[in-house]
Amino acid sequence: MAGLRERKKQRTRRALIDAALRLFEEKGYAETTLAEIATEAEVSTRTFFSYFSGKEDLIFHDSAERLELMLALVASRRPEEAPTSLLLRLIDQSLVWAAQSGELTFEEAELRTRLVMTEPALQARGLLLLFDSQLKLAEALRDAFPGEVDLVEAAAAVGALIGAVKLAVMANLGNDRSIDQIMRTARRAAELALDGLRALDERAASRVRADRHGMAS
Amino acid sequence: MAGLRERKKQRTRRALIDAALRLFEEKGYAETTLAEIATEAEVSTRTFFSYFSGKEDLIFHDSAERLELMLALVASRRPEEAPTSLLLRLIDQSLVWAAQSGELTFEEAELRTRLVMTEPALQARGLLLLFDSQLKLAEALRDAFPGEVDLVEAAAAVGALIGAVKLAVMANLGNDRSIDQIMRTARRAAELALDGLRALDERAASRVRADRHGMAS
Repeated sequence: MAGLRERKKQRTRRALIDAALRLFEEKGYAETTLAEIATEAEVSTRTFFSYFSGKEDLIFHDSAERLELMLALVASRRPEEAPTSLLLRLIDQSLVWAAQSGELTFEEAELRTRLVMTEPALQARGLLLLFDSQLKLAEALRDAFPGEVDLVEAAAAVGALIGAVKLAVMANLGNDRSIDQIMRTARRAAELALDGLRALDERAASRVRADRHGMAS
Repeated sequence: MAGLRERKKQRTRRALIDAALRLFEEKGYAETTLAEIATEAEVSTRTFFSYFSGKEDLIFHDSAERLELMLALVASRRPEEAPTSLLLRLIDQSLVWAAQSGELTFEEAELRTRLVMTEPALQARGLLLLFDSQLKLAEALRDAFPGEVDLVEAAAAVGALIGAVKLAVMANLGNDRSIDQIMRTARRAAELALDGLRALDERAASRVRADRHGMAS
């Protein structure tokens, strides 16, 4: 259990994130100053800087830590573990981390995605982080399977998995109304990437058959 | 065959792209002005603006047109054509378009990728274009298979395919030394996405077997 001091730090951090997202929503990202965020969270600007390096950092605060956890998981490949077993562990563990962090409510996740897609400064850092972390994961995957998986295969696997999950979640943001629904969308997309897009053909064909059957009966 | 006037336009356009990439390489993207690009290509600034709306447009000049071609191809689904057959047609045709455009030399492709990954203004537009075009393709794919493929599946498929190809090409930029090699990397990545990441397991296992066999003999 975290000590009193640690819990107090967590609360301040949480208050700063909440205040920032509230102000970004109300006034817009570019129009919100650091001083306003600190005031809204009832701390000094100096305290703000002991938690975050700036506004961008508030949005991407967990990216670096999350990437380290993911790289460590890939490096922990078990003897005889197949590439996709390891990738499945990575997906499941990522969903657990997302749920555990306790920093993600549905509205926050939605607002954050919207901001990253529309604010030029965030777009730029978002693109860099996206490719940088995927490239590092691909190298880690190759290194976890020396002589078994080459760099092109590792990059294709990581790109397919993250590409599928990101785009499916983004495309379905208008339909998913809770974190649980977003998680289900993410898992469906990951499974399609693991099974291969050819799995789509069977599903599509079986739906056509069911439809014809439905019309005939 | 294109008329004289059309060929002259193509030459001027080509000269502007060449001049811009040369200057971006020498002086840096941010430090290069439109006037310098026009002078280097031996045209007036006014002529520059009849071809491109600005520096960013020089980098992304074919994105909009390429997306329209891709959307039209997806909409041209043939009766009974399965989802992945259509996606395979899309990949093959994209490689043909890339080769035909005649605007892509290896050095240009490399420089362009490097610029988009490092210049903040280009990063921002790159991220937007990337997700915007993928979301449009996902919607087109769903619409081409009404009642057969839903939005989450379509987005997962498009995200996996483009995610695999983009990351594999990017990861291997240091090893591929020609456009042909880049195309081969792209195709290997696309095939892995179609077959599913589980195909990796079989390959990895067979390499381990081959290795053990090699050691034993």
